[in-house]
Order: sequence, then structure tokens, then C-alpha cells
Amino acid sequence: MALKALDYDTLNENVKKCQYAVRGELYLRASELQKEGKKIIFTNVGNPHALGQKPLTFPRQVVALCQAPFLLDDPNVGMLFPADAIARAKHYLSLTSGGLGAYSDSRGLPGVRKEVAEFIQRRDGYPSDPELIFLTDGASKGVMQILNCVIRGDGDGILVPVPQYPLYSATISLLGGTLVPYYLDESQNWGLDVNNLRQSVAQARSQGITVRAMVIINPGNPTGQCLSEANIREILKFCYNEKLVLLGDEVYQQNIYQDERPFISSKKVLMEMGSPFSKGVQLVSFHTVSKGYWGECGQRGGYFEMTNLPPRVVEEIYKVASIALSPNVSAQILMGLMVSPPKPGDISYDQFARESKGILESLRRRARIMTDGFNSCKNVVCNFTEGAMYSFPQIRLPPGAIQAAKQAGKVPDVFYCLKLLEATGISTVPGSGFGQKEGVFHLRTTILPAEEEMPEIMDSFKKFNDEFMTQYDNNVGYSRM
Amino acid sequence: MALKALDYDTLNENVKKCQYAVRGELYLRASELQKEGKKIIFTNVGNPHALGQKPLTFPRQVVALCQAPFLLDDPNVGMLFPADAIARAKHYLSLTSGGLGAYSDSRGLPGVRKEVAEFIQRRDGYPSDPELIFLTDGASKGVMQILNCVIRGDGDGILVPVPQYPLYSATISLLGGTLVPYYLDESQNWGLDVNNLRQSVAQARSQGITVRAMVIINPGNPTGQCLSEANIREILKFCYNEKLVLLGDEVYQQNIYQDERPFISSKKVLMEMGSPFSKGVQLVSFHTVSKGYWGECGQRGGYFEMTNLPPRVVEEIYKVASIALSPNVSAQILMGLMVSPPKPGDISYDQFARESKGILESLRRRARIMTDGFNSCKNVVCNFTEGAMYSFPQIRLPPGAIQAAKQAGKVPDVFYCLKLLEATGISTVPGSGFGQKEGVFHLRTTILPAEEEMPEIMDSFKKFNDEFMTQYDNNVGYSRM
Repeated sequence: MALKALDYDTLNENVKKCQYAVRGELYLRASELQKEGKKIIFTNVGNPHALGQKPLTFPRQVVALCQAPFLLDDPNVGMLFPADAIARAKHYLSLTSGGLGAYSDSRGLPGVRKEVAEFIQRRDGYPSDPELIFLTDGASKGVMQILNCVIRGDGDGILVPVPQYPLYSATISLLGGTLVPYYLDESQNWGLDVNNLRQSVAQARSQGITVRAMVIINPGNPTGQCLSEANIREILKFCYNEKLVLLGDEVYQQNIYQDERPFISSKKVLMEMGSPFSKGVQLVSFHTVSKGYWGECGQRGGYFEMTNLPPRVVEEIYKVASIALSPNVSAQILMGLMVSPPKPGDISYDQFARESKGILESLRRRARIMTDGFNSCKNVVCNFTEGAMYSFPQIRLPPGAIQAAKQAGKVPDVFYCLKLLEATGISTVPGSGFGQKEGVFHLRTTILPAEEEMPEIMDSFKKFNDEFMTQYDNNVGYSRM
Repeated sequence: MALKALDYDTLNENVKKCQYAVRGELYLRASELQKEGKKIIFTNVGNPHALGQKPLTFPRQVVALCQAPFLLDDPNVGMLFPADAIARAKHYLSLTSGGLGAYSDSRGLPGVRKEVAEFIQRRDGYPSDPELIFLTDGASKGVMQILNCVIRGDGDGILVPVPQYPLYSATISLLGGTLVPYYLDESQNWGLDVNNLRQSVAQARSQGITVRAMVIINPGNPTGQCLSEANIREILKFCYNEKLVLLGDEVYQQNIYQDERPFISSKKVLMEMGSPFSKGVQLVSFHTVSKGYWGECGQRGGYFEMTNLPPRVVEEIYKVASIALSPNVSAQILMGLMVSPPKPGDISYDQFARESKGILESLRRRARIMTDGFNSCKNVVCNFTEGAMYSFPQIRLPPGAIQAAKQAGKVPDVFYCLKLLEATGISTVPGSGFGQKEGVFHLRTTILPAEEEMPEIMDSFKKFNDEFMTQYDNNVGYSRM
């Protein structure tokens, strides 16, 4: 009997090929265990509110008023909402063409895109054009739109850091392109060596691949490193020489936990490099409301800014965005609030500053607790989380464990993470989901569990890990870094 | 000099190929004119709130409280919100894992999917399984996900009605598939003749196309017809025999303006057909919060229900959905509210019933005013809008007008619609954006302008049209129906 279009064997092969480990086997098993009543600590995905982080009050007040605009005519509105939230809600509603229920322009509300451009200009010290900023339903959607424009077939390669956030590998598979890996150096705190890049490109070209674009994630996901200005400059020169579009994933730009390398945007570095680079490198930078001290993942808001793209290409990207009509308007407004938060003197300023500072300082402490915790464990070594939301320890699995994994039909780090999950309820993602060097194993966990629960979680991890290592350790032939 | 990846000439050709007329040349020109200060009536897209429709109060109260959950602890909350809205907000928050700021499961909140399944069961009288319902950021995103699974390359064809909503043509182009048109019969009130379908499939096959899926839009967009139960049964039989997945675009199911053919879902008809059809036809049905009397376009909420898809395929669709993490949670809750609105006896019931009935009855009157208005115009004939939100009059352009369009380098209906826009500010979409028979011309307009403005708009249209026709009419050789 002939197969139907939605039978497994006749599905689009690109759909079948793509893998997304952040919500893969471990997550599915964790969800099952949760259904069975086990307490699960979901650290598989950077989802702060799911682990108890409270939303920032002021932006939520504003968006709530935009959802219920009739409250603005209620004489009692001032009993529940401060005057500056009321004023901001009126401001944002005036930027829409019918409130949150009306489609906006497919690029997002012009007024919010203007606020984003002003934010970028303040941040970088260089002009930004609202016409080159598109709002999106989260940064992931923006990345997918741009890669869709770049990738024409499997002859097109995209340089992606390894370890990488699997959005990139999954999207490239889905679009039928080829991922060209470049390895970050764990022994150099996950540094990026341009010589590695050259090798990766040369190797891809020798296989007939046209390398078209390069992805950087700064701060790094899952690796947590912050790129230096000098490093970004090298990357931009490389992109200039090789005619690559640079996709700058900068969604963790607020999440910095050290003072030596504050966040610096690729756009700013590019502008500072001047001619011929500043007009010669095609750059698309991504940002989101999901990360930072906002953590508004479920709202799905983001933007991308395009630099040095020809107007005709911008029009094409606009056309494709228009097929899905518009990003959700509520998160567009949240993005507006993120880029223009309360100012000193505003009624809500103190509360806003207190809340955001509190979250960021706690994240910094948690990054430290987690790194130290991992480094106290047997056969575990972990670079410090300089930025972003993740810890990515190397787990040096003894041969006995690798053997046992093989017998269970599992990749060794998947085997380890499953055992960890069953024993402790901690739901992580195996390093193989992000890519890692042959024979080296990691896991990714977020630094997001509540600070007060952190010591207990790390104790529970250590207890599991050290027992696991003792069980399998025969003191010879560790996998090496 | 070599081209870069985001230069026009090196872009993905599928991106360049796709067309989306709803936000095409006419919309762009209208936006320009608006910037120059001209009053524009945007009837190019079904966007009710942009034309003054007020949101339903109760659902907005609930979502506002979910955005600002701290209000639930405020002793004054009852001064601004009724008790049933407060209770519902608590209910929906309890279904999330961290409020609106947390990613949900990539399929959407399990609790909301359960409410959707209960709604479908009440509507159709047959069971519905929440595990086979995925929530989406609007119905368009769902359609794109499913077509992405079906289309493997340009050898795969999708049967699409002509005239059609250009989401389908654009998505098929973007995914590199082939659109296989089947023509609706304007003289039979845009009826669907299964013999036409057979011809379309035979012709496509003779060109080496594997026809894999069929799209129906019921009620029709842009054509406004409602399919009869008998007609849907014929279609399902056809899909069974030809092994086609049926994509049932049922986003206008609340928008019915006649009593002869109430909405009946493809799922219900399929279940009533019994064996072998009810277990043999693969069906995916789409719904949204953007249409009906809700019109919450900017919120981006939708769902699809899968029938007779193998579990492994459902898993693959889940995997791909997970790449973008989750649909926005706020609109998921709005979807929950749409499928479980206030019941008689609830505090907010009367208001909710009054508001929704008011919108629907006014739409019914507007459908009539618009059809009659068009039919009173020179060289214009228009089928009655039985459902959905559009009027799709045929404009019988005189040879002189076709000649003038040719001289201006425009498709004749684009020429007419541009003149209409410049003269009256009415922004429509030319029929060529939806597909139409050779030499026959239409435009699409929504029936959404405020009822009290409708007579003036139709007068203004008639004045423009009749002058246009007089100017170009030489009384010979009309284009014919």
C-alpha cells in the first residue's frame, strides 16, 4: 500500500535529520518522571521564570495595561498602577494601530524599532537606523529568517562554534545547508582562535562547500565565555576577507559575571575599525527579551539589526517576514521597555533598579557557586561562567563508564546525564547535544536554580557524581581534555 | 569582486520567488501615502482591531492579570477586575510553569491543549486528543510547520484553491515545492467541483509532480463561500483515494453570515463517514484567535489538530516545534479563553455574550452592505460573503483600461487598485495576488471597516469605479466571467 504524505518514510528528510538536544531525550525523560511525581529541577533550558525568578514589576504593569486598555479610563486605575506605568502604557498604545489585538507592520511597530535604534546608539556610540531593525518572536525566529535567506542548498556552509547552541545545527539541517564547525579551545577558557577558523574554512572548501556565514555567540552558549574586543576585531577581519556574513548572537549581553571583559557588541567593534571594514562586513546582530535580568522567555520577543545589507535584500527579508504577518505585539512592547527602562527620577525607577540589580548580582554569585561546586567533584573540571546562563563542566568519564554506556546503547554523556536525572532529578543536556571534541564529555546546566537551593543541588550533584566515578573508576585511561 | 552571502544575487532563490500580495505593492504604496498624511482605510488584511473593533473585555481582563500576577495579591484588585476574571487568571497561571515569562512545552501548555480538545469534542461530537493538538503563534505558523514536513522538493505538489490566500503560495515557494492549482467556480458562488480536482491532479502527475496534500479554506478566503457537508465529504473521499493529507484552514469558523450552511468541520465530517475513511485520511485542521469575533491578530495565537498521523510523525513535528522553544504563552491563554468562554451564570457572561453577538451581527450586516454596494457599481459583480471577512468582487475592466495598465507597466487589476487607493484611500489587494482565471479581474477587500463608515466608503468606491469605467469604457469586449 502506498504511503501517505505524513507517513514517517515520506517526510521531508531535512525535518528528520535535525536534532534539538535542549528538548531532546533527557528533557522527554525528565517530563515523564515529573508526570510520575518525581521532583525535577529543569536546568536543560535557560528559562529563569520556570525556576522561580519573578518578573520585573514595571514592564509587566505596562503590558498589563496595554492588554486591558479600558482600565486607563477607570477612575480607580491609580490604586493598582503607578502613574509612570500608566503614562508608558498610553505611549505604547499610541504607537500601535489598534492595540495589542492588531497586526503591526511585519517588521514590528515603527515606534518600538525607533526606541531600539536609540538604545543601540547609546550602547555603541554609533548611529543605528530603525529601518534596519526588525522585531521578531524571540531571537531564534530571527536567526531562522536570516539563515533561510543565506542557505541555498547543501553546498552552502555556515561556520558554527563547537560547542554550539543547537538552534544553529537544527536550523541548518532543517534548511538543508551544511554546518562547518570551528572548535573553541576549552584549555583557553573556550577562546576562539582565528587559525582554527582558517583551517575549518579551508577544509570545507576542499570538500566543495561554499562557506557563506559565520555564527558567534557572545557571551557564549553553552560555554559562558566573553569575547574580547581584540578577538571580535580578528573575527570581523576574517569575515571581511572571506566575504562571510557574521551572525552575532548577543542575546546574553546583559549577563556578565566578571569585570575584565565587559560586553562589547560586534557592531561597535566594526564601526570602530573604520574603512574598509565598517562598510564592507555584512553583520546581523540578535537580541531578545528572554535573557538578561528580564528572562521573559514565554513572551517571545526579540529583534535583529542589519548592517551593510543592500536595500533590496532588506526588502526581501521584509517580504518573507510578512508571510507570518507580524511578531506578537505584546512582546514588541516589552522589547520597547527593555531598551528604554525607567530613568532616575521616575516613580518606578528605584524598584526597577533594585529588582534588576538583585537578579544580576545573584546570578553572578550563582555562577561562582556552580563553577566551584563542579570543580570540587571527582573527575569534573569546569571553566568559570564569565557570562550567559550556563555552566559547561567537562566530565572525565572512566573507561568503565564508557563501556557501560556502550552496553546500554547510549552515548557516554547521555548515559551519565540520564543516571544523574534518575538519581537527583537534575535535568541537564549532554555535551554531545552541543558538539565536543571526540572522546571528551560535558554536560550543560543553567545557573538558574534559586540561589538558596543552589548548595543543596550542588551537594546532590557531587554525591551522585563521586559515587558514579567510584563505581566506574579503574584509575586508568581517563578521557582527556 | 565576489558577492557576499546577503547580496541580492546570492540570496536563496526560493526567498526571492515567493510573493505575498496582502502586504505587497498596494500595501507599501498605502503606507507611503499614510506617511504623507493621506487618510488610508486599510482593508488589505483581516485586521479588525486596526479598524476600530474593540477587544472582548473578559479575556483581556484575564490576560492582563496573568501579565501582572502581583495584582492578585493586591486587596484592591476587585475594584478593577470581576471575580470570575480573577479566578480564571489564577486557573491559567496554575497551568504554566512560571507564568507568562516561562517557555511552555513546545506544543503549548498541556492544560490549554486539554481545553482545546474539550472544545473540539463539544463542537464535533467526537473525541479529540490533547496530545494531537499543538498550539502555535497564529495559524500561519502552524501551516508553515506542516508544509515544511510534507514538501521535500519541487517534485512535491500541494493542491491549493484558486483564488487562494497567498500564505499558501508564498510558503510553498519558500519551501521549494510546487503549487498545484484547482479552480473554484465563481459562477457557482465559488463552489468546489471535485471533477476540477481530478483534472488538476492528473495534469500535475503528467508533469511528474507527486501530489501530496490538499488545502481547503472553509469559510473561504478571499472568496467567502461556506462548504457544504456533502462537498467536504467528496473532498475527503478524494483525499482518501489519492492519499493526500488534507489541510483544513478553518480559521473563519465563527464568521458565518447565512443560515443555510452553518460551519461544519472537516474532522466531524470525516468521523461521520466512518470506516475506512475515518481512520484512513490524514487531516490537519487549523484555528486561530485572530479571526471570528475575537480578531486578536496581534496576539499571535493558534492551534492545529492532527488526525490519523503516525506517532513517529507527531514526534517529528514536536521536535521541529521545539527549535523555536514555545509559542508565546499569553496568546496560548487567550486561546484557552476562546475555547472556554464565560458560561451562563458567570458574572461576565452577559457582557461577553453582548459584545460577541454585537460584533458578529454587525459583520453580517456589513457583509450585506458591501455585496450590495459592489453589485450597484458599473461593471462590478460580487458573490455574497457567506462567511470569513472578505468581499471579492469581479471587476470587469474595459479594454481601454487594460490597455492603459499595459502602458503603465502594471497588471490590470493592480492598475485599478492603485488608482482606487490614490483616489479614495481604500487599500485593497488585487485579485492577481490570490490567483484568478486568465483575463478575469478582482479585488479583495475586508468587510471590517466600522459599520457606520461603510455607506460612505461604498459611496466613495462607487464614485471612483463608475468614473473609472466611464473613462475607459468603449462599450466593447468586456473581459468576461
